[in-house]
Amino acid sequence: MTLTTRQIRLERTPVAIPVLSDFGLTEVSLPILQPGEVLVAPSHLSLDPYLRLQMGKRHLSGNLLPGQPVVSELVGKVIESRSEPFRPGDIVAGFGAWQDKTIIEAKGLRQVDFGDLPPSLALGVLGMPGLTAFAGVTELLRPGPGDVVLVSAAAGPVGSTVGQLSIAAGAAAIGIAGSEEKCRWVVEEAGFSACINYKREDLAARLKTLAPDGPSHYFDNVGGELLRTILRALKPHGRIALCGTMEDYNSESRSPGPLPMEIIGARATLMGLVVYDYEHLRGPMTQTISTLIRQGRFAFREDVTPGLENAPAAFVRLMQGKNFGKAVVALVAK
Amino acid sequence: MTLTTRQIRLERTPVAIPVLSDFGLTEVSLPILQPGEVLVAPSHLSLDPYLRLQMGKRHLSGNLLPGQPVVSELVGKVIESRSEPFRPGDIVAGFGAWQDKTIIEAKGLRQVDFGDLPPSLALGVLGMPGLTAFAGVTELLRPGPGDVVLVSAAAGPVGSTVGQLSIAAGAAAIGIAGSEEKCRWVVEEAGFSACINYKREDLAARLKTLAPDGPSHYFDNVGGELLRTILRALKPHGRIALCGTMEDYNSESRSPGPLPMEIIGARATLMGLVVYDYEHLRGPMTQTISTLIRQGRFAFREDVTPGLENAPAAFVRLMQGKNFGKAVVALVAK
Repeated sequence: MTLTTRQIRLERTPVAIPVLSDFGLTEVSLPILQPGEVLVAPSHLSLDPYLRLQMGKRHLSGNLLPGQPVVSELVGKVIESRSEPFRPGDIVAGFGAWQDKTIIEAKGLRQVDFGDLPPSLALGVLGMPGLTAFAGVTELLRPGPGDVVLVSAAAGPVGSTVGQLSIAAGAAAIGIAGSEEKCRWVVEEAGFSACINYKREDLAARLKTLAPDGPSHYFDNVGGELLRTILRALKPHGRIALCGTMEDYNSESRSPGPLPMEIIGARATLMGLVVYDYEHLRGPMTQTISTLIRQGRFAFREDVTPGLENAPAAFVRLMQGKNFGKAVVALVAK
Repeated sequence: MTLTTRQIRLERTPVAIPVLSDFGLTEVSLPILQPGEVLVAPSHLSLDPYLRLQMGKRHLSGNLLPGQPVVSELVGKVIESRSEPFRPGDIVAGFGAWQDKTIIEAKGLRQVDFGDLPPSLALGVLGMPGLTAFAGVTELLRPGPGDVVLVSAAAGPVGSTVGQLSIAAGAAAIGIAGSEEKCRWVVEEAGFSACINYKREDLAARLKTLAPDGPSHYFDNVGGELLRTILRALKPHGRIALCGTMEDYNSESRSPGPLPMEIIGARATLMGLVVYDYEHLRGPMTQTISTLIRQGRFAFREDVTPGLENAPAAFVRLMQGKNFGKAVVALVAK
């Protein structure tokens, strides 16, 4: 008997912000499971900004071309396994196609067991975004008491985790986000000292009030003009982790970086962060963040879209900045 | 009796590379020495690229305007003192006007006593350039055995010191310089493993041969395209000290910095270096470098122009990159 599955594929390379017609829904048959492979029914698909770079052939993890299924990280249940130690019923995470059922090589899968916490967190604050933030805070920024950590995209899974880990380390956190609703959550739920709505407020002026000496640390998900503005406001000898350039993701152009003279004048340290380098920190990250969650000292939010067929719309929303929390698609078991 | 002195002043703000007619030689009378002041007869004036930025009103230490005497660091002998502990005959260093005799506030002066080593080194490898290099190597780059430190302007006082301190720390050094003669000195005298003549050689290709994994560290005095080329060649997780942007000094424009995406892709750390922050390291710097010199493990070069009246021509040569070694003007006692 041939198994079939629905599949979301890229139909054409997006121009600027992706639109629905860049994607298509199709029915494909699954090949026979081979040794070393596992058949997984995803419960949650991860929507991440870097996918836009793959579609534009500009990400170091590879390209996504028209005609190919969209592949992202996902969490799901093992249906059939031809590899130890995976068994039917196991909850696993790994990279797989946006399908109701998808075949994944066992070596790219990991078991998910967070006890009382939901497995979908393996895509968010206990997954790649959490690991990104954990590496940024513990390996690169290293804030401590007396420090002020500024975070862009502060309502997202990376930014909110950076702020909350910094607070746990004794520092104060200031967020930057794009709506009043997000800013409220960042302060009231995630415990940041303040949050600046960059769409409505004068960032430089507000920063001067909030941190007269300038922030000592900045975690950057945006790049471009925002980065240069903050470099000018930074406390001397401040540290900046560069993690993403959201300003560029929907564009062929790349926004300019800070000038060497500006970096020198600020006595700043800028550090490039690629999460793939920090796989060895996954254990400590999971331990640290899940403990903070259980202690009630760590807030997280998911932005859940139900139904595989709605994944393209959810991705478009993400790239428009309309998501609020970690964007995932929840699949209904078929 | 009124004392008079010759004086070099800026006549007009230079456009692009300075020319002789931007400067003038005049005779001025010296005011009566006030309490707290010291009258110094300079033996050596320091020529430094940052002076060009002051003339363009673009340096954080202040501006130099038409009609004002050129002021730089200098070494000289005390003629008259109205401040303890300075006495006639003392050898001192500090910032003063380009004159045969110049009045300097005592609080900006320091005694120079290098024993058997020449006092003019207080302007070079035992002065601000030495301190710049020492801070860059010991505080920012921190190379060790197995590392490969790439240095631009490698025949200059900062670059040659960066390389030699890195070698003393167990690393290998590769230089970049602008002539065969400079490259020969960098390798044969200063002990670098290799030196790339950027005017004749394909830097990226040569680097690939010399350091197949890429340099682990880069000390940048140049900025601009060179910095971006080297960032692309850098070993992952490499460290870059940004110290100057020679490419911009003679221009109103400022060359672009590396893109955030390029810094992220390289997993690089970029650090801005301002020597004024490291005055507390002057003692350890002097101790370390003078010991290396006496052990025969440290080469230095001075590019000496005799005569106050020739200081403008010497500065023009410096900004044309024609100097070879620390550029100083030697004054004949009048």
